[in-house]
Amino acid sequence: MDDARLSESGPPEGTDSEPGAVIELLRETAPLVQCVTNAVVVNFTANALLAVGASPVMADVPGEAGECVGAASALLVNLGTPSGEQREAMLEAAEAADASGTPWVLDPVGVGALGLRTAFAQRLIALRPTVVRGNASEILALTGSGAGGRGVDAADTVDAAIDAAVALSARTGSVVAVSGEVDAVVDGDRVVRVAGGSALLTRVTGGGCSLGAVVAAAVAAAGSGRAGSVTAHALYAVASERAAARAEGPGSFAVAFLDALAAATPDDLSAHAPRIAAAPPGDEARGGGA
Amino acid sequence: MDDARLSESGPPEGTDSEPGAVIELLRETAPLVQCVTNAVVVNFTANALLAVGASPVMADVPGEAGECVGAASALLVNLGTPSGEQREAMLEAAEAADASGTPWVLDPVGVGALGLRTAFAQRLIALRPTVVRGNASEILALTGSGAGGRGVDAADTVDAAIDAAVALSARTGSVVAVSGEVDAVVDGDRVVRVAGGSALLTRVTGGGCSLGAVVAAAVAAAGSGRAGSVTAHALYAVASERAAARAEGPGSFAVAFLDALAAATPDDLSAHAPRIAAAPPGDEARGGGA
Amino acid sequence: MDDARLSESGPPEGTDSEPGAVIELLRETAPLVQCVTNAVVVNFTANALLAVGASPVMADVPGEAGECVGAASALLVNLGTPSGEQREAMLEAAEAADASGTPWVLDPVGVGALGLRTAFAQRLIALRPTVVRGNASEILALTGSGAGGRGVDAADTVDAAIDAAVALSARTGSVVAVSGEVDAVVDGDRVVRVAGGSALLTRVTGGGCSLGAVVAAAVAAAGSGRAGSVTAHALYAVASERAAARAEGPGSFAVAFLDALAAATPDDLSAHAPRIAAAPPGDEARGGGA
Repeated sequence: MDDARLSESGPPEGTDSEPGAVIELLRETAPLVQCVTNAVVVNFTANALLAVGASPVMADVPGEAGECVGAASALLVNLGTPSGEQREAMLEAAEAADASGTPWVLDPVGVGALGLRTAFAQRLIALRPTVVRGNASEILALTGSGAGGRGVDAADTVDAAIDAAVALSARTGSVVAVSGEVDAVVDGDRVVRVAGGSALLTRVTGGGCSLGAVVAAAVAAAGSGRAGSVTAHALYAVASERAAARAEGPGSFAVAFLDALAAATPDDLSAHAPRIAAAPPGDEARGGGA
Repeated sequence: MDDARLSESGPPEGTDSEPGAVIELLRETAPLVQCVTNAVVVNFTANALLAVGASPVMADVPGEAGECVGAASALLVNLGTPSGEQREAMLEAAEAADASGTPWVLDPVGVGALGLRTAFAQRLIALRPTVVRGNASEILALTGSGAGGRGVDAADTVDAAIDAAVALSARTGSVVAVSGEVDAVVDGDRVVRVAGGSALLTRVTGGGCSLGAVVAAAVAAAGSGRAGSVTAHALYAVASERAAARAEGPGSFAVAFLDALAAATPDDLSAHAPRIAAAPPGDEARGGGA
Repeated sequence: MDDARLSESGPPEGTDSEPGAVIELLRETAPLVQCVTNAVVVNFTANALLAVGASPVMADVPGEAGECVGAASALLVNLGTPSGEQREAMLEAAEAADASGTPWVLDPVGVGALGLRTAFAQRLIALRPTVVRGNASEILALTGSGAGGRGVDAADTVDAAIDAAVALSARTGSVVAVSGEVDAVVDGDRVVRVAGGSALLTRVTGGGCSLGAVVAAAVAAAGSGRAGSVTAHALYAVASERAAARAEGPGSFAVAFLDALAAATPDDLSAHAPRIAAAPPGDEARGGGA
C-alpha cells in the first residue's frame, strides 16, 4: 500500500500548517528536544533529530530530566528500556512539561506485551501528553483492548486500532498517532491518514522510536499536536522512500535515511500532500473529521 | 587463515540441520529473541537480528526480563556492561529460560579481565545456558584457566581454548562456541570448526556480541544448540567476507555487513559448507567428533 | 573558517611529538582505553577508538570501573548521561587513575546547562584530569563564567572561552581542549590552535564525545597531554574533511568519518601541520606560548 494515493484533496484544511511550512519552521527554530528514551535507539534518535535540524538532549537522570525540560521546546518520553532511574526521570520530565505547558510526546513501546510498562504508561498518560505515538498494538493496549504486540512489534493493523485511537484521544485530549503501512493521526474524532514510506524502516531499530522524537520537534515548530504529527509522519514517508531507492539492505537504508531526513525540502513535503487525507480509505463512517 | 579450506567433506553429518536449511527456517519463523545485553552494542545487535530476519526485544529491566522470556523463542544474556539492574534482569531472564526450556545463550564478555563479572558468570552458568559464546580468553577464564583477555579482546588463540571448551561443555552440557580466526563450536567432545570471515569484523564494536544474538535466533530456528551455533557462525563468515569486499574501512564495513546479513541466501550458506569441518586443522586427536 | 591557514610555521616546537609521529605510536601500541561514557554515544565512541587503532573497553559499573583502569593505558570520563551507578563508577575510575598516574580525560558534557552534573564535575576535577575536553560553553561553566550551553551544544565561541581555559589550566594543571570552528588546546598559558574540520561533525551525535576518547588514546601514545590533544584534534580535522568530501548528508558522513579515521596516515597528519599554530589568530597577546 506504499504507493496508494488516498485522496486528491491535499492536506486537511483548517488551522493546520502545511507540512512544508512546518519543516521550514523546524529548520529555522531548531527546537531543543529533551528525550528520555531507550538505550537501543538513543543514538539513532539523536542523529535523526540532528538530521531534521532539531537539537537533541538526552538527559534521562532524575534531578536533571525535569530541569532540562525547562530549557527545551519539547519532550519525548519513550518506554523502551524503562530502568528504575529512567522511570523516575520520565515522571519528573513529564510533570515538568505538564506544569509548564511544554509539548510532550509519549511513545508507549512494548505496552501490552509487558506488564510493568503497561501499568506505568497509565501514570504518564495522566500527565497529559500532547501526542501519544505508537504502533497499533500499543494503542489498543492503552485502551485496554487488543492482545498486545509481539515484543515491540505490532500484531494488529492500523485500521484495527482507529476506534481505540479515537477513544484514547477523546479520553485524554492527546493527539494519537498510529504507525503502520498507512499511518493515522487522530485528534478527537478527526482522523488524518498519511500514506507512503518503506517497509525497510521496520528493519532498522529505532525507525518508529526516532519518529516519536521528530514528532516532538515538529509539534514544537508547528505549535500544534496534529500539524506536527502529520508533518513528522509525512517527512518519514518521504525520507524512507528516498532512502529505499538507494539502499542495498537495512544497513545502507539507515544511512541513506538520515541523509534523506536532512535533505528533504519543504517542496518535497508539499509534493507528498496528495498522500495525506482526512479519512481512512474505504471507511466512510470515519470520513467526516476534516 | 580467512581463506583456509578446512575440509572437502562438508558439514558434519548426523541429526544436524544444514546451515542453509536453518537460515531458511529462521526467515520463515522470525523468532522473537529477548536480549539483556550491553549498552555499547545493543543497537547494532537489534539491527543484526532484524537483518537476519529475527525479531528483537531488549527488555533488560527486572520485572520485565523474565516475563519477556515467556513470549520469546530464545534469550541472549551478554555481560558487557552489567549494571546492578541488568544483573538482576539477567538472573530473572535466565531462570525463566531454564524453567521453561527456552534456549538461551550466555556471552561472557570481559570475563577473566574483570572480577565482578567473572564471579557473576558462574551464577549464570549454573542456570544451564544452551550455548556459551565467547572469545578464547573468556572461555579459558570460565574454566579457571588462562590469564584473562585484554579488556574485552582475546589474548589467546581459539586453538589454545579448545581443551577448556571441551571441559566446559562436558561440565555444563552447554554447546561452547569460541570465536577467532577459525571459530570452534564444541558440543561435548565433538568439535566443529568454521573458517572464513574478515578481520574487519573485529574493528566494529558488537561484531562478536551481535553474533551471540544471532546464535540465539538460529538455535531457536534449528531446535539445536550445535546446528544453530554452526549456522550463525557460518552466516557471519559469509556476510563479513561479502562486506569486506565492498568496504573502504570499518565504518562502511559495518553498514555493508548488515546489508549482507539480510542478503545472504540459503545457497550462500550451503556454498560455505566446505569451510565447515568436524576437526581442528592438524589436530588428529580431536578429529573423531563427527 | 574551516579552510583558514593559521600559520605557516608548522606545529609548536619544543618537547612535543609531531602529530604524525603520535599517530604512528598509537597504531603501534594500540592503547587500551577505558571509557565511562554516555549511552547516546558509547557505540560510536567504541567504533572511533577501534578505527584509530586503539582498543576500547567501556566498563561503567562500580566494582569494575576502577579495576579496569589498572589494565588500561588511559581513561575517559564523559558526563553525558550520568546515572547514579555511572557517577559512582566515574569517581572510582578517576580515583584509580589519579592514584596510579594513568592519564585521564574529563569531558564535561552539558555542564553549565544542567545543575547536577555541573556540581559533580567539580568533584571530578579535584581528581586531576590530564585533559579537560569540552565545548566553549562547558569550559566557561567549569570556571563559573558563561551562561551555560543550549542543552549539550555550545552557545559561545572558542575565542570567548580562551581566558577561561587558561584559568582552568592554571588552577588544575590540566590541559584544556576547547572544540569549535578552530579548536584550542591550552596548557598553562600556552595556546595551540587547530584549524580545519567540517561542520557535518556537529550533525552526528558523538562527534565531540568520541573525540574525548581519541584524545585519551593519543595522550597515552604520546605520553603528553598537550601533544596527544593536539594530535587527536588534528586527526579529527583531517578525517572530517575527508569524510565531508564523500558524504551526501549526516548519515553517510558518520560512516565515511570512521573510514577516514582508520585510513588517515602519519603523512596526512603531517600535512595538516600548517593549520596547527601556537597562537589564536589576531590575538597577539596570547601568541608567546610556543
